[in-house]
Amino acid sequence: MNQEKVAELRKWMASNEVDLAYISDPSHIGYFSGFESNPMERILALFIPIDKDPFLFAPGLEVEDAKASSWAYEVVGYLDSEDPWTIITAEINKRYGTPKKLAVEKGQLVLDRYQRLADTFSGTDFSADLTPLIQQLQLYKTEEECQRLIEAGASADLAFEIGFKLVKPGMTEEAIVAEIEYELKKQGIKEMSFPTEVLAGPNAASPHGSPGKNTVKENELVLFDLGTIVNGYCSDATRTVACGTPTDHRKKIYDIVLEAQLKAQEAVKPGVTAAQLDKIARDVIEGYGYGEYFNHRLGHGIGTTIHEFPSIVGGNDMEIKEGMCFSLEPGIYLPNDVGVRIEDCVYVTKDGCIPFTKTPKELIVL
Amino acid sequence: MNQEKVAELRKWMASNEVDLAYISDPSHIGYFSGFESNPMERILALFIPIDKDPFLFAPGLEVEDAKASSWAYEVVGYLDSEDPWTIITAEINKRYGTPKKLAVEKGQLVLDRYQRLADTFSGTDFSADLTPLIQQLQLYKTEEECQRLIEAGASADLAFEIGFKLVKPGMTEEAIVAEIEYELKKQGIKEMSFPTEVLAGPNAASPHGSPGKNTVKENELVLFDLGTIVNGYCSDATRTVACGTPTDHRKKIYDIVLEAQLKAQEAVKPGVTAAQLDKIARDVIEGYGYGEYFNHRLGHGIGTTIHEFPSIVGGNDMEIKEGMCFSLEPGIYLPNDVGVRIEDCVYVTKDGCIPFTKTPKELIVL
Repeated sequence: MNQEKVAELRKWMASNEVDLAYISDPSHIGYFSGFESNPMERILALFIPIDKDPFLFAPGLEVEDAKASSWAYEVVGYLDSEDPWTIITAEINKRYGTPKKLAVEKGQLVLDRYQRLADTFSGTDFSADLTPLIQQLQLYKTEEECQRLIEAGASADLAFEIGFKLVKPGMTEEAIVAEIEYELKKQGIKEMSFPTEVLAGPNAASPHGSPGKNTVKENELVLFDLGTIVNGYCSDATRTVACGTPTDHRKKIYDIVLEAQLKAQEAVKPGVTAAQLDKIARDVIEGYGYGEYFNHRLGHGIGTTIHEFPSIVGGNDMEIKEGMCFSLEPGIYLPNDVGVRIEDCVYVTKDGCIPFTKTPKELIVL
Repeated sequence: MNQEKVAELRKWMASNEVDLAYISDPSHIGYFSGFESNPMERILALFIPIDKDPFLFAPGLEVEDAKASSWAYEVVGYLDSEDPWTIITAEINKRYGTPKKLAVEKGQLVLDRYQRLADTFSGTDFSADLTPLIQQLQLYKTEEECQRLIEAGASADLAFEIGFKLVKPGMTEEAIVAEIEYELKKQGIKEMSFPTEVLAGPNAASPHGSPGKNTVKENELVLFDLGTIVNGYCSDATRTVACGTPTDHRKKIYDIVLEAQLKAQEAVKPGVTAAQLDKIARDVIEGYGYGEYFNHRLGHGIGTTIHEFPSIVGGNDMEIKEGMCFSLEPGIYLPNDVGVRIEDCVYVTKDGCIPFTKTPKELIVL
């Protein structure tokens, strides 16, 4: 359980006159409670009152796991045959009485679950929104969180090392993915933070392309975008490598993306804004005339999930500060031709940033 | 794109005087449109009006993939630097005018996205809920859907075959998981429908246990719960096997669960209720005095997701009908001792049911 972040939550509750917080999102519950779980359609809920003991509400078959986690307070279970909301309501009334102001995550809570609470507590004020607060808390990583992100980064480097050895003409994308994940699993890294992408040749020109029976071909580029989850924290990194000597055209595209990535990464320090970082990378690519082929933002925050704040995007004037962690991932995608993306996630220090992944970014020719 | 289901949706819209449906859940969007995608925090939305052409709204970098899918109508994209709701509002106004009654999925749509629409269309009636309708539509599988579920079931059988060969004293659970998924990926089965569970000995007594460095031991039972995704449709099956001759006690627990599973499966036919099926299995286990150790429902529907309707649970008087697909998975979990679960997903025919997985259910001794 994350005492520090629960304390920050309660500080916010006090200044917003909120007497009860209902956390519904499983990743947020993991963040505060230390209990990581995917309850599917079942109800998992964390109730944190301003000045009494909190409780975790979980499907009956997860109660033992929850108790065995770092969560230090009570766990209330329910059976599949019971109505969870009846139990939740009774528990809230018994423990805390009717809440005056109950904060929910408006960016995560679905309408019908909200409605069940709002109908039961018809006199309660539901105006307070936890989502921006949690996004704000998650913006700054503690030293312990940073340590986990470093470990996740190291396993992404390991994944690249495994994958690069397999880049040979005739190998299918899906076979390379299978080998990478197999080797990682054998080494105890159980979970990828998203489906591993290995995209060869023109297939890499679709930023959301899917690895399949397409094979690596001589003189083509191969894009690897992958990440792992280590102790609940994610890595996310991209490298594009060459199978044999690339054509001048492909090498040129690679060099432009590399220049954009390095310039953006060099510019990261407290005080710069998210929009400025995006613009630094975009200006490089636009300067070479490929602006329209860099069709996504420069980056996104990373932590217990792979997409959180800050969003490194044009129009976002959020100031970068020490402790923020995010990706820098410019790309150029020329349809039916070539796709290049280079990505590191970085940790902002007091005068710059440190990447979580150390695999070289100069073009690797295999 | 699923013309048949879109037509059923429009029939419902007509009888509920709904002029526009907003589908927000990515798996529901896949179900109607044929475009499968996980947009993370970005907005993916499907707008289906009662009598004009629908449109799909997608992140810019997914537009090409969406157009290449079986979706037959327009795809509107947006850039990360643009406000998606401004574009959505303009598109709705341009195409359909202000909706009188706009139906949303109250079980999937999050509060703040709902609020954006509700603020913009302040005169619109948002009372209609798509969630129960979609659950109802997904209850009955078309022949094509059933065919995909059969294929997914066959790959679960293949996964068992791969896994059973690896059951030897000293093998870790995580190594068996790694081998199963590796072999499947090499054969082109890219995605599991949930994290594969291989749990040896007492570790199987936690229904949500997680495979790790725990090893298979002589005379113990090993539980395999796994599933694949094939063409967007899921399989989900469980077998418990023995490594060497099990003790009489373990064999007895196995036989009780098997009896419960077979009796429930034999009882499936149109007219029986979900609660009756749950009771048939539960009565067997309770009859032997292990009722308290069967601490979850008997089963759940399966289709494009692994947990959908019908829920096979006490208190659910839903009548089983031809075309429904769901799991039957009784279990007994004796803490620190032994865990057994046996599961098939079945397809309801006019006078019984057919399982999607064919791996034998009599105790396999390896």
